[in-house]
Amino acid sequence: MKINRNFDNLVPNYLFAEVAKRTNEFIKNNPDKKVIKLGIGDVTLPLAPVVVEAMKQGADELGNKETFKGYPDYEGYEFVRKAVSDYYKGFGVDVSADEILITDGAKSDSGNIGDIFGADNLVLVTDPVYPVYVDSNIMAGRKIVYADSNADNGFAAMPPKDIKADIIYLCSPNNPTGSAYTYDELKEWVDYANANDAIIIYDAAYEAFITDENLPRSIFAVEGARTCAIELCSLSKTAGFTGTRCGYTVIPKELERDGHNIYNLWYRREATKFNGVSWPVQRAAAAVFSEEGQRQIRENIAYYQENARIIASAMDELGIYYTGGKNSPYIWLECPNGMGSWEFFDYLLENANVVGTPGEGFGKNGAGYFRLTSFGDRESTVEAIERIKKLLSE
Amino acid sequence: MKINRNFDNLVPNYLFAEVAKRTNEFIKNNPDKKVIKLGIGDVTLPLAPVVVEAMKQGADELGNKETFKGYPDYEGYEFVRKAVSDYYKGFGVDVSADEILITDGAKSDSGNIGDIFGADNLVLVTDPVYPVYVDSNIMAGRKIVYADSNADNGFAAMPPKDIKADIIYLCSPNNPTGSAYTYDELKEWVDYANANDAIIIYDAAYEAFITDENLPRSIFAVEGARTCAIELCSLSKTAGFTGTRCGYTVIPKELERDGHNIYNLWYRREATKFNGVSWPVQRAAAAVFSEEGQRQIRENIAYYQENARIIASAMDELGIYYTGGKNSPYIWLECPNGMGSWEFFDYLLENANVVGTPGEGFGKNGAGYFRLTSFGDRESTVEAIERIKKLLSE
Repeated sequence: MKINRNFDNLVPNYLFAEVAKRTNEFIKNNPDKKVIKLGIGDVTLPLAPVVVEAMKQGADELGNKETFKGYPDYEGYEFVRKAVSDYYKGFGVDVSADEILITDGAKSDSGNIGDIFGADNLVLVTDPVYPVYVDSNIMAGRKIVYADSNADNGFAAMPPKDIKADIIYLCSPNNPTGSAYTYDELKEWVDYANANDAIIIYDAAYEAFITDENLPRSIFAVEGARTCAIELCSLSKTAGFTGTRCGYTVIPKELERDGHNIYNLWYRREATKFNGVSWPVQRAAAAVFSEEGQRQIRENIAYYQENARIIASAMDELGIYYTGGKNSPYIWLECPNGMGSWEFFDYLLENANVVGTPGEGFGKNGAGYFRLTSFGDRESTVEAIERIKKLLSE
Repeated sequence: MKINRNFDNLVPNYLFAEVAKRTNEFIKNNPDKKVIKLGIGDVTLPLAPVVVEAMKQGADELGNKETFKGYPDYEGYEFVRKAVSDYYKGFGVDVSADEILITDGAKSDSGNIGDIFGADNLVLVTDPVYPVYVDSNIMAGRKIVYADSNADNGFAAMPPKDIKADIIYLCSPNNPTGSAYTYDELKEWVDYANANDAIIIYDAAYEAFITDENLPRSIFAVEGARTCAIELCSLSKTAGFTGTRCGYTVIPKELERDGHNIYNLWYRREATKFNGVSWPVQRAAAAVFSEEGQRQIRENIAYYQENARIIASAMDELGIYYTGGKNSPYIWLECPNGMGSWEFFDYLLENANVVGTPGEGFGKNGAGYFRLTSFGDRESTVEAIERIKKLLSE
């Protein structure tokens, strides 16, 4: 019996464990200090009332013989897929309900999508990077190359002309850097992918935070994407579904590689190794896309966006370089005075009692950078920012 | 770009599509006939009231800032794992809460567990077989060998002494044959696995249908299993969760292979490619294991068991050989008069207007056999059985 030896190549990620350890030690040694956490990537506002109501109706339906639901369709109920399709229409993107699959989230999808590709493809990720893209491909034994996101390109890496990648992971608006690709930038990636017979796995989990109408909300807003892209999206950040678990995958019916239809491969993967999303969760997801649902979730998103604006304004005032803040819940900032990212973490914790996330936890280009998030509550965010401003303008 | 070429080796399974096609054609041509379906493997009774109530409370908690839940623990909330651990204690099996992981179902788990094993292991499945064990391993490029379940061994295959398998899938009570391993039979498998450095992936999804107190409800009731077995279980058939989606994996902390701790590998896999189970579903799952929950789900199970008894009694009366019926929701019967399984399907549909599942859809040893299920309603089950008795005793 042999285990999957690729697991030996995984690098343990101690980022959040180390953040928690240092934070807890500080709190223990300074019980009088009020520590504010702006490091979390999890949402804090509750589900919208119309979403809760739909979920409860779904539960009641499961409790009644006439309305009971057994095994769901592997690709998700049609009324949910139709609601997602209509949502895309709302920002001018045409994807049909039968190109959409309802899943338990973009993390599962970005991890599992690799099942349909061979082990000998070259994977390209941007650095800094959401660790799942890297770890899931290490598990599959694929070789990974990195495109640098840095201050020169606004932390939005562009295609490396000298590398012929097969599978490309893009996240826009980006976690952790908050940068969002413009149409022209994405078009470069799409052209690169089509020219190289590659597939872009496009993580649009933060699309709902885009306010600039010129920025694409979907890679399928870009000409040529339908022949090279898979889009993953999620209700986690759009509608506070981190603990509810629902997302969706969009695969154009004409997307083919290596003589195979990609939608069909993913459908076969899901039909074999997944059994669909819980009925009350699918009911809740459909409610997100209703008119009232959109109004209610927009209130929550606006709340986080105002937090992000407050943080970004402070960086502007302090003259600190950053990306994100607009079109993203994340603010990715250059540590002041040339500090390293862990050095700045300790400095901020000790002197402002504020917790953020050291950038180097997301890759080598994160060294000297730091992530703050807008998912906290308003009062704490304002107070944390006042403290940071005071500390850094001293 | 290369797709995963192992997908080319998947054999399309047209079983249920062909069943649906022939059934629909018959209904179209015989609109006056009342067709009864005893082929379905899905439950039909609603969720227990206490389970629905917990799910709705969970939904309400997500709608309130003070009780809102974000990202769940990858391994599931402790109160759910503790409830599962206590449930095992109820039938005398000691597995601790930190050996249990809460998942979205045994199908996902049986498909995904392969991620932690190397591609060059030899896989052993029993035939007839639940297709997921086969297809997920074909996707991973593993070689598969078959142990025959047949009338000689009561459709409960025993270890093949001449084969050294690395990964063994067992399902008991079995889908589709309804046979359940005795302690001594399972002990043989455990000894075989330990002797061969193999791991048994034990699917216990139907354990709640065991009524014979001498039959093990878990492989961990068997001495030696903690050093060779992973158990998968599900609330799908236990508590009607086919559309709610919740299951659990049990991996003893001392289980090691190839120098690696198996629990740790699976935890790492889940932490990377899964993000936990929806909060209201975990609340609902915990309610299943409460005292009132157990009382309520037992009523549903008893209902199905009575259906199974009615079907099995008819087979006894008709003198037809079958397995299952007791300790299982499935009745696996020998087609009468030497008919082939599709031949019997057509015969039954045309002459008794009853739909079942041809055994050969589950593997070569299913040829000449047929599966009936107890998940229909009582009235239809009784009527179908009366028709079958009348037809076959003519």
